[in-house]
Amino acid sequence: MDYPELKTSLTERIPQVEGLRCVLCGVLYSLDEAKYVCPSCGPVGTLDVVLNPNVLWPTRVDPMRRALVWEEERFMPIARDLPKPNETIALRVGDTPYYHWSETKNPFLRSHPFAVKDDSKNPTASFKDRASAMVVHHALTIGASVVATASTGNAAAALAGISAAMPQIQAVIFVPATAPQAKIAQLLVYGAKVILVDGTYDEAFDICWEACEEFGWYNRSTGINPFTSEGKKTIAWEISFSGYEMPDVVCVPVGDGSIIGSTYKGFADLKKLGWIDQIPRLIGVQASGSSALVHAWENNLDPREMQPRPAQTIADSISASLPRDRAKALRAVRETNGAIIRVTDSEILDAIPALAQATGVFAEPAGASAFAGWLVGLEKGYIHEKERVLILNTGSGLKDINSAMKSVHGVGVLRPVKPEMDEIRKAVAKFEW
Amino acid sequence: MDYPELKTSLTERIPQVEGLRCVLCGVLYSLDEAKYVCPSCGPVGTLDVVLNPNVLWPTRVDPMRRALVWEEERFMPIARDLPKPNETIALRVGDTPYYHWSETKNPFLRSHPFAVKDDSKNPTASFKDRASAMVVHHALTIGASVVATASTGNAAAALAGISAAMPQIQAVIFVPATAPQAKIAQLLVYGAKVILVDGTYDEAFDICWEACEEFGWYNRSTGINPFTSEGKKTIAWEISFSGYEMPDVVCVPVGDGSIIGSTYKGFADLKKLGWIDQIPRLIGVQASGSSALVHAWENNLDPREMQPRPAQTIADSISASLPRDRAKALRAVRETNGAIIRVTDSEILDAIPALAQATGVFAEPAGASAFAGWLVGLEKGYIHEKERVLILNTGSGLKDINSAMKSVHGVGVLRPVKPEMDEIRKAVAKFEW
Repeated sequence: MDYPELKTSLTERIPQVEGLRCVLCGVLYSLDEAKYVCPSCGPVGTLDVVLNPNVLWPTRVDPMRRALVWEEERFMPIARDLPKPNETIALRVGDTPYYHWSETKNPFLRSHPFAVKDDSKNPTASFKDRASAMVVHHALTIGASVVATASTGNAAAALAGISAAMPQIQAVIFVPATAPQAKIAQLLVYGAKVILVDGTYDEAFDICWEACEEFGWYNRSTGINPFTSEGKKTIAWEISFSGYEMPDVVCVPVGDGSIIGSTYKGFADLKKLGWIDQIPRLIGVQASGSSALVHAWENNLDPREMQPRPAQTIADSISASLPRDRAKALRAVRETNGAIIRVTDSEILDAIPALAQATGVFAEPAGASAFAGWLVGLEKGYIHEKERVLILNTGSGLKDINSAMKSVHGVGVLRPVKPEMDEIRKAVAKFEW
Repeated sequence: MDYPELKTSLTERIPQVEGLRCVLCGVLYSLDEAKYVCPSCGPVGTLDVVLNPNVLWPTRVDPMRRALVWEEERFMPIARDLPKPNETIALRVGDTPYYHWSETKNPFLRSHPFAVKDDSKNPTASFKDRASAMVVHHALTIGASVVATASTGNAAAALAGISAAMPQIQAVIFVPATAPQAKIAQLLVYGAKVILVDGTYDEAFDICWEACEEFGWYNRSTGINPFTSEGKKTIAWEISFSGYEMPDVVCVPVGDGSIIGSTYKGFADLKKLGWIDQIPRLIGVQASGSSALVHAWENNLDPREMQPRPAQTIADSISASLPRDRAKALRAVRETNGAIIRVTDSEILDAIPALAQATGVFAEPAGASAFAGWLVGLEKGYIHEKERVLILNTGSGLKDINSAMKSVHGVGVLRPVKPEMDEIRKAVAKFEW
């Protein structure tokens, strides 16, 4: 593909975007004035990409053709002088399965129908591919050939994997040296340049930002790049145009708060465009060991008042001491009459086999926490029995086999039997069908 | 769902199937006469489900609507008195991404366009879900509520996962006690009943079959159940109706030979129905440490003459000393003017990052072997430069992280750096972009 010389401003090239508005102070910057966070509020002042629904486009995509969200210029901040993301990103991002369950082996669940959106079927097996796809496409738009991020988890794999598929883009990942070797290996398999940082995640985050400024790299790090939200918001389109009725409630795992914040942004944009009438209640689910946003929501804090809190949970994808997208996350639940609730690590672990045995969907701990959160929300009255619930699974259980093994209390519970029918009969007699 | 009483014969309920024909002696049995293998030839005499293209159906599915292969009664052996597999199997099986690559970071590959069918995006992250879906649906058809298999690998996970999604079906898996704990844990997460067999895989296979006979369970084990092929053959439909031109060559990983055998069966059925004109050449790829079918093909052996050979390879999904579907595998390459070629474990390991870095597709060793096989096939003249090649990735790299780590020579190659720009600059200066 040949890309045009970048002669005109982003404002002209992406005319359907009015600008970037700070979620805290409300100031609107043009696409050419701001890039990551609000120059006045700092990192807590994350930016919204503001659509201008009055800009007319020559072609229109039928919103019912769900796979085509990446071509929808009225909904997505894509430049008119470039090929669409469906062309630049060769991989199938999004268009993940939407399952509706009314019959399962679990008697409780049979009387509580629910739906699952299985985002573990994205190219690198997590929801984060949506963000990386949009950011990498925007890198082409702004003429950046290197995209960097600080992460050890799904976001890093997503940037590495999506960039692998793009000949024009190179990924650089800043990883704390203490990260699990298996996760780092995956980044190397995808060909990302990996910088092992002898320090904490926050130090890796800061030095990544500094390196981006010095080398002209585009920074995809969670919670500061407004285009990550624009990729993630595609989930709202897929939920709205799934062919099923709109759910009343969507349960979303919450760490930094980016996913729930972006899900809200997507629904809000769809409503602004007049394509949907109402927005589901968004229920954020945090691990009790990493529940800064539960605390803020219960105490009605302003995001600016929040302080770091200790974070430790088995669900590493949603571990965050001071959630970087706290402003967008709190807005999402406050604007939709939602809630942010906590579930224990033990409830999360139990949810892995419970969800898998009811649906065949094998989730990583963060994804299972959304399912656990639904059950806790029902029990505590945050979710009503009659509400139609959608559970968002954000990542594959294959990403964290150790937790899966813990969730079934190890394989040691099984005793080997000799390959003789007498022994087999005894083993079968003990099955609880 | 309510299922009908099973009063009539399978022959009447699945009228589009003429019967089951032995691939060796050619005898045709009715669906009510035979179940697993040819009563006269024994286990090497695997059976084909023979379609009768003259049976008319009231409704017809447009073959271009690829996701609907599971509803196509003229192509699939589904009973007319049951809901279609798309209803009984709630999960999205098949409909996996088909990627066509002409631009990658790899200069060699830029001048050698190729396509990848990424079957790691199936529900349990492998191609085997196609087989399990059909078998489990057929279990409903024959009124079996337990489906069993002997396996440690993708087939076991596929049966466990697909059965989890079906309230009427329980999976029982016979696993050698020496299998990796992580793989067993996944089966337990899905709620399968696991019998740890203190013996070899062959002993587990035999005792599974015996248990199925005694308890009336339906046996899904590889190489004996003719309906596994019918599920797997859906890949041929998706390749034929992908929207891309038909490939000239399809490269398929080969262990027991079931996948390549079933891919051929799918193309042959499509040709019989008059829906395609020609069948791609099928190139089977075996690991050099497990290459019984390469030996048989090179020496033009009859499948009945083949003897067990030692099998040891890093690609555990394609390790087989006496491939159980040897008759169907040899037929596939002989009928299509294909080949079976060997690749070394080292070539397989190298292929994991090579494929991932060119496409973003992270394959397990067996899947990567198909890519390695294409490169070896080009070099050795089994595949011509001008032939349009499709690589079938059969499983996710997340299923075998240890091999992924080996493929990038460990993470130990990276030296941690302090979070200071001086250090970062030095690290960046060493990058080979």
